[in-house]
Amino acid sequence: MPVNYRTPSALDLYPVDGVRLGVAEAGIRKADRRDLTLLSLAAGCRVAGVFTANRFCAAPVQVCRRHLELGNDVRALVINTGVANAGTGEHGWQAAVETCAAVSQLLGIDDRQVLPFSTGVILEPLPVDRLFAGLPRCVADLRADNWHAAAHAIMTTDTVAKAASRRIEIDGRWVTITGISKGAGMIRPNMATMLGFVATDAGVATPLLQELLVQAADASFNCITVDGDTSTNDSFILIATGQAGVEFADSAAPGYQEFSQAVFAVAMELAQAIIRDGEGASKFITIAVEGGRDHQECKCVGYAIAHSPLVKTAFFASDPNLGRILAAIGYARIDALDVDRVSVWLSSAGTEILVAEGGGRAASYREEDGAAIMQQAEIGVRVSLGRGQARATVYTCDLSYDYVKINADYRS
Amino acid sequence: MPVNYRTPSALDLYPVDGVRLGVAEAGIRKADRRDLTLLSLAAGCRVAGVFTANRFCAAPVQVCRRHLELGNDVRALVINTGVANAGTGEHGWQAAVETCAAVSQLLGIDDRQVLPFSTGVILEPLPVDRLFAGLPRCVADLRADNWHAAAHAIMTTDTVAKAASRRIEIDGRWVTITGISKGAGMIRPNMATMLGFVATDAGVATPLLQELLVQAADASFNCITVDGDTSTNDSFILIATGQAGVEFADSAAPGYQEFSQAVFAVAMELAQAIIRDGEGASKFITIAVEGGRDHQECKCVGYAIAHSPLVKTAFFASDPNLGRILAAIGYARIDALDVDRVSVWLSSAGTEILVAEGGGRAASYREEDGAAIMQQAEIGVRVSLGRGQARATVYTCDLSYDYVKINADYRS
Repeated sequence: MPVNYRTPSALDLYPVDGVRLGVAEAGIRKADRRDLTLLSLAAGCRVAGVFTANRFCAAPVQVCRRHLELGNDVRALVINTGVANAGTGEHGWQAAVETCAAVSQLLGIDDRQVLPFSTGVILEPLPVDRLFAGLPRCVADLRADNWHAAAHAIMTTDTVAKAASRRIEIDGRWVTITGISKGAGMIRPNMATMLGFVATDAGVATPLLQELLVQAADASFNCITVDGDTSTNDSFILIATGQAGVEFADSAAPGYQEFSQAVFAVAMELAQAIIRDGEGASKFITIAVEGGRDHQECKCVGYAIAHSPLVKTAFFASDPNLGRILAAIGYARIDALDVDRVSVWLSSAGTEILVAEGGGRAASYREEDGAAIMQQAEIGVRVSLGRGQARATVYTCDLSYDYVKINADYRS
Repeated sequence: MPVNYRTPSALDLYPVDGVRLGVAEAGIRKADRRDLTLLSLAAGCRVAGVFTANRFCAAPVQVCRRHLELGNDVRALVINTGVANAGTGEHGWQAAVETCAAVSQLLGIDDRQVLPFSTGVILEPLPVDRLFAGLPRCVADLRADNWHAAAHAIMTTDTVAKAASRRIEIDGRWVTITGISKGAGMIRPNMATMLGFVATDAGVATPLLQELLVQAADASFNCITVDGDTSTNDSFILIATGQAGVEFADSAAPGYQEFSQAVFAVAMELAQAIIRDGEGASKFITIAVEGGRDHQECKCVGYAIAHSPLVKTAFFASDPNLGRILAAIGYARIDALDVDRVSVWLSSAGTEILVAEGGGRAASYREEDGAAIMQQAEIGVRVSLGRGQARATVYTCDLSYDYVKINADYRS
């Protein structure tokens, strides 16, 4: 059960002119589940992508990078679940290339105009025959109002589909931004997320689109972690179809600030949905670190807290065993950190209490206040390092029996 | 239940001339358990210590460092469990200083000749009155053959006491090395371990003793991890009483190599015992990384695998979902790692199988062979990075329901 998250209804997901989506049950790993998704893009779309920093990056990620280098007239995205096509060597590369060829034949486009994505089990071969057999059904299903089905068809261990949509008015014209994401475990995106696809009908010049994508990823997907495991298949794609009649040539263009904020909001909603549906999650935890010398050290402290199995199990148990947070701050390898200047607060639903200051427990702290906050489903941890002006926020969830259950059972 | 580990019997733990130990039930946090330990050292002992790198290091760690700086005529060590006296600020420092004063009065020595150690819950005040009340009972219990009781009295979430002992003959004289350790969670020592105390009746010159201690820690306690959480209280102490009539002035002294190997063996046995008794552990996993450019990058890869919750849950489930190991290698941030040169083997009980090479699954790999090894309680993972001669080994355990249970319940 995700923490305070519900998939938007199909009607709440605005179609994006220039993007059609189709899904199918291809039986890639399991029967009776939609596991293949095709996005067909109109001519003239611009596409930007960021991908995993994992050295064992999946074959489709390598093919995506190559195809985006070859030109930016992408016309199709194909996404399978069940098998990640990662750790599959030369055969994996071939399978991804052949998948693009199969899509290009069906749509009458060039191979390099197709971007492939896979998610699922690593180290197993992609069953290309079943994938190829499913593609015509995806093509037959292509519709502009099919985002809801696509959000479901890219799920793996997700318990809910993740989607977000915004419409804003710029200069008298409506601009739409709609996106979907998936992911629940092996989540500690670095450069990008598990899988995220966002499209807008605004026109955005290519260098600006890439800049916007990186900024949006840094402010959303790159701030979340479930288990610290950076996936082999992380990909985050931003598509600008240009069909709304609004064009942004550079970041000074009228309405761009408002537009970019809407893109950030969609990206953040999709990223937080992944944490709310984190494997076994019962709590959504926001860790805000401030007073650091630079952004990087704030992020280090945030991730040290977010990755600590002891902190995560304390949240699961609703136990204010908050010394574990101090221990995590202490081992985050922050150079010359003066613990006497560190303060820690805990908050929920507008109530914030000081837990620690001056190297120890705050005199005003009362165990029952900490216990009351730890019972909540949405908890904030605020840390001040007391040595600068930088800040960073990390989003995470707790570590429960169900995380172990899900990951002990995932393949079997 | 620890993985293939049984506490040595009291008779198997050789007394070390010059060291007497006494324990008591002081009721520091829970009733009816031995939670206070005193080691009384004869005059003339030399003592070396390494301590946690956690910035929120505990008050007793700070006092230990200070007392060791003031001189090396340590005469007593006092250890309490239940409360870590970490994250306790100025009051915590006072409590540790007063503890030393109480011990020194009872033994007729100087305050600075006492080293204090605490382990337990962080952020809670040390109940010094109860500790002081227990000290005379520790003094009354002082005996040279009391290592077994001391190993029990320093336990927290440990399910078994940890101790190791060796006798070697050097130049016609018997030299004894006996040690105890504790720890099961918040284990990722950095500079030292949770708590480890090793004593020998050999004489070792002070600079050499410190060098030996650091080498022994690096080869043992600094290679283990349960959950990646570096504790606030890690301490590893080596005591040389000099009463065996064997003296090592420097590392070229006759018999020193043999002696240092015996110290390493005791330290390794104590360190591995912590992993075998890791919280919720059902498997003992040895991760050997070779073919790296330097020791550090091999260690990074080893810890990335050892800390991955996905790898750890796969071991718990006996599921050869070995792509998770590749993913962990891939995100270990090894500069310019060529995954096509990486090989991974799995082994148990003398059988080793090649799992991955050339960036993907090995052609010879059969799932049933992987599954058979994953069923075992002792598993080896060997990784070759294929780019150098360096190597490192990391020891860890799996992640089970019981880890979550133990840490969700620990304080409550």
